[in-house]
This record gives sequence, structure tokens and C-alpha cells, in this order.
Amino acid sequence: MRLAIVGTGTVGSSVAQLAGDYGHTVTAMANVEAATIDSGGIDVEAALERQHEGERHLGEDDPEDALEADYDVLVEATPVTLGDAQPGFGHLERALQLDRHVVLANKGPMAERYGEVMDLAEQSAGEVRFEATVGGAIPVLSTIEDYGPETITAARGVLNGTANFILSRMASAGLGYEHVLAEAQDLGVAETDPSFDVEGTDAALKCVILANVLAEGDREYTLEDAAVEGIKDIPESALELAQEDGRTIRLIGEVAGGEIRVGPRLVPEHSELAVTGTTNIVQLETENAGRLNLSGRGAGGPETATAMLADVGRLPPL
Amino acid sequence: MRLAIVGTGTVGSSVAQLAGDYGHTVTAMANVEAATIDSGGIDVEAALERQHEGERHLGEDDPEDALEADYDVLVEATPVTLGDAQPGFGHLERALQLDRHVVLANKGPMAERYGEVMDLAEQSAGEVRFEATVGGAIPVLSTIEDYGPETITAARGVLNGTANFILSRMASAGLGYEHVLAEAQDLGVAETDPSFDVEGTDAALKCVILANVLAEGDREYTLEDAAVEGIKDIPESALELAQEDGRTIRLIGEVAGGEIRVGPRLVPEHSELAVTGTTNIVQLETENAGRLNLSGRGAGGPETATAMLADVGRLPPL
Repeated sequence: MRLAIVGTGTVGSSVAQLAGDYGHTVTAMANVEAATIDSGGIDVEAALERQHEGERHLGEDDPEDALEADYDVLVEATPVTLGDAQPGFGHLERALQLDRHVVLANKGPMAERYGEVMDLAEQSAGEVRFEATVGGAIPVLSTIEDYGPETITAARGVLNGTANFILSRMASAGLGYEHVLAEAQDLGVAETDPSFDVEGTDAALKCVILANVLAEGDREYTLEDAAVEGIKDIPESALELAQEDGRTIRLIGEVAGGEIRVGPRLVPEHSELAVTGTTNIVQLETENAGRLNLSGRGAGGPETATAMLADVGRLPPL
Repeated sequence: MRLAIVGTGTVGSSVAQLAGDYGHTVTAMANVEAATIDSGGIDVEAALERQHEGERHLGEDDPEDALEADYDVLVEATPVTLGDAQPGFGHLERALQLDRHVVLANKGPMAERYGEVMDLAEQSAGEVRFEATVGGAIPVLSTIEDYGPETITAARGVLNGTANFILSRMASAGLGYEHVLAEAQDLGVAETDPSFDVEGTDAALKCVILANVLAEGDREYTLEDAAVEGIKDIPESALELAQEDGRTIRLIGEVAGGEIRVGPRLVPEHSELAVTGTTNIVQLETENAGRLNLSGRGAGGPETATAMLADVGRLPPL
């Protein structure tokens, strides 16, 4: 397939770099400032080097022209935005209008405007896939799709690696939140402004997307429907107390009974949910097959790219 | 899709019972002794009741006619056989000759005659899928398929629930093998003749199938290529000794570096591989996304049926 990659940060760059290994050709790449377009295939390494040289000067083309180029799949990897989910939603809209496929890592459109996305997809010859929006490399959405969303009665898990790293480190090292946050920032596991992760918003968006997928159009959810509590107020003493009782604390997101909740929760210390470091886990409760546990790396350039390329592989030819 | 279900034991019956929920019609059912065929759709409950009434008298039709009936997908759920993998292989061969799809739970053809199956599939308009042959309800093969077999560098796991139940119970209760085997047989977790499970053969067949999938035709494996050791000689003292060191013992199957090994192995007692009871787990090591852990119910009628119906859902129309 020919890929137009819009958003050339960590994830978009990784997709561009791995595309050839999967037999695909990158025919357009665009960031906010510039684009490079070549129907015969872009020299990805050269383009990324130009971008790296401080000016984000990916190429000589206009970013808007990238959406009009020759491609089969729009790879939408621009940063998540809430509310109107722009410009990501607009990118998706244009590609579908042109009857192209869309594969997203950007959670915005799928969490905040799910119904509209599905309507646009219905009217298009192109399809929309978004495995990378939930759980990074973990095959959550394809598993739900294959087993049938109607057979999944609940989904829960650890969906944010930053928050989980902090909590599991607080627990294992007996250190306080601020100290461990600083460690996480030094390691590049937490952002300079970590609020999106530690307040639970990132995990909540993923749960909203899960809820939308499981509802199959019967009901539409947005971030406003989630009850969200973050990890900033957990004292180290709470973790010690939990441990005395054979438990620990993790930031758990759950979709069940039409409700979406994200918050710190006590879990048995060796439970599947007590993953450590930046590992993510999703537990699916199924009607006929009990519980499925899927865990792995929930974030990272190559990791997320893997999920996007798996999605590309499941698209039918146009 | 219209399903012809050959083999109406635990798994085949479950597929028949659940087919309607997934929008499919059962147009043929056959066991060794009899068959029932109806292009308009079989009354599954009535057929299973007749079978249940001690004479396995599923219907008035000849089992061989089931393969010639009107159906899109042959659901092959007859008991596993080694070597020539008959009659399962013959059922698959006939369906593919007639340009129908085949979905298997029967490990025999995929472990012992993988290359021949792939050749037949290539010459047929029908496709062959076999998720249910490895890890029951756990989406192992579809995950490998979506992520690309060439990107999976190793696969390992606990692939037999009977052996795992016995070992985890020996460890947790401090009981010996014979005692726990008897418990397992009372619970229906182990067969009267448990050798297929406790000698590691079942786990080995699953690993052989994994090895065939990962090799993508570069090399073909059969059960003879697996180095297999079972659990019958593990004294309870070995588990105590392991526990003093923070470890336990599990029957682990691994496919890596072109080799297939099944045998008891020491694992850290809270490692992901230290699943308890009849739970199965498969760990995939990937090139770009680190380790994926997939765990859940590895056996059971409805569980395995779920995997077969997920396979049916991924088949293209004929």
C-alpha cells in the first residue's frame, strides 16, 4: 500500500521507517510546517534527517497537499486534541472524502467524534482503523473485532505507562510521588508537563475509545462521560499500607455496564493488573471464553508503528 | 456463512450452538457414525439432543455426504491424530478441492502435514485458518498474522492446561504428582489416560504449529522435530526447593532459533509464565515492540468455539 503519513513525530517517523519492511511505500509525509510528496516513493531517511536538522523542513511541499497526493492509506499520527479533535478530524475527513483508508494513532477523533467518524467511513470506499489508539503494540481492538464486540462484557486495564511507572516505582522503592515523577522525567518516561498522563486523561481517552467500540453504535461516548481520577494525591504511605495487606495500587481504567471509570485502585500485588514499569495490560471479559489478558508495550515509536502497520495489513485493496 | 461441522464433540457442538449468535447457519453436522444435512439450516439443539441420546444418532445422512453438502466453511473439529493426520487431513483436502474454506481445531494436519495443507490451500479458492489449534480462546495466530510472522523472533508459553493445573496445584498445596493427577481427573481437568497432556505431546503439537507459522514456508516442522519432556517425574520436593528460591516449575513450550522444546522449567514464581490452574499463556518476542503476553483459557467447548468463530469472521466471501 502507499502511505501518506501526516504527523512525523515519534510515531509517524517510526511508521515511515518500518513501512518498507512491510512492503509498503511512503508517498507523502507532512508535519505542521512542511511536506514532502513523491508518488514513486519518498527517501524516508533523507526526509527525516532534514526534519531533524532543527527546522522541521521535511520538504518543499505544502502540508495541505499531502492529503491530496497519491496514497491508499492516510496514517494519522498528529498529536491528540480534544473537543473538535482538529486538525486530526479534518485530515481523516478529507482522506475519506477522497475514498482513501485511514489508520490513526491520534485518539482525538475516535474518542471525541466517534459517531461522525463512523458515518464518514460508511459513506466512503475507505475504511478507518485505530488499533494504535489503545494500548500501543497490544492487539486490543483487533481481538475485540475478531471475537465480536457484543461478546465482550467488560474491558479494564493499565493503559498509561507513565502513571504505571510512577506508581510501581513508588511501591517498589518506597519513594514519594514528586521524587519518582522527577526520576520519570529524567528517563523520558514522563513529559515536562505530565498532567495528561498523571491526571488520567490519556487512560480515559483510551477507555472512551474502548467504550465506543464495545457499544457498536448503540451509544456514543466522549471524554466527558468518563469519571477520571489521577495519581497525584497518592501518598507513599498508602502504598506501604496496601503492601502490608498483600496489595498494591495501580491506575486502572474500566469500561463496564455502560460506565467509564479511571482511577487508582487497590489490586492484589501479584495480580495480572499489577504490571510494572511502563507495561500496559488490557483484560477483556468475554461471554464464552472467560477472561483474556493482553499485555505489552503501550507506547513508543516502533511499538505504536507496529500496531499501525498491523492495521494497514488488514485493509482491503481500494 | 454456512458451516459444515465435522466432529461434534465438545468443540464442534459448541460451534454449532454459538453459530447463530454470530450470524452463521449450520447446514451440515457429522460425527463418525452419522450426519444431518439441511441447506436451509439445521435445528442444532434437536440434532445435539439426538446425539446425546446414547446412540450418537445425529441424523439420517451419511457422514461422507457432509463434505459434499452446501456450505462455505468446513469446521474441522475431529479428534487429533498424528502421522498421516487422518481422517482430518482428508476432510480438509476434500473441502479445499471443492473450493470451500476450512477452519480447524484439529491440530493433526497443521502439525504433521503443514506444507501439504498450504499447497492445497494455494490451489483452492478456499482458505485455511486454525487459531483454535494453539491456545484455545487466546488470539495467538491472528496476532502473529497481523504483526507479521517475520517480526516474531520467539514464542513461548504454557500451552497445556492439564499439566499446568497439576504443577500449580502441586506447588500451592505441597502435594505429590499422583495425588494431584487423581484430583485433576475427578475434576475432569485430566483424562482417564492423561498421557497426551502430561507427557507434553499436546503442548508440543501446538509449538510445532507455531514453528510452522513462524517459518512461513522456509522450513517445515512436525512433532518429530520437537524435544519433549513431560511432568510425570517431577517430585514435590523439586517444587519446594524452587519456592525457597522464589521460583516455581511450569511445563513451558518454546519456539526459538529454529528449535522446538517442551519441558518443565524453573520460572520466577510471580513471572507472567507462572500462570495457575488451567490458564494458558503465550509470550511473543517481537522485533519492534518488545514482548507481548497473551493469556486466557486454552481449552473448553465455548472457549475453543470462540476462536473458530473468530476465524470464520476473517474469511472472505467465496
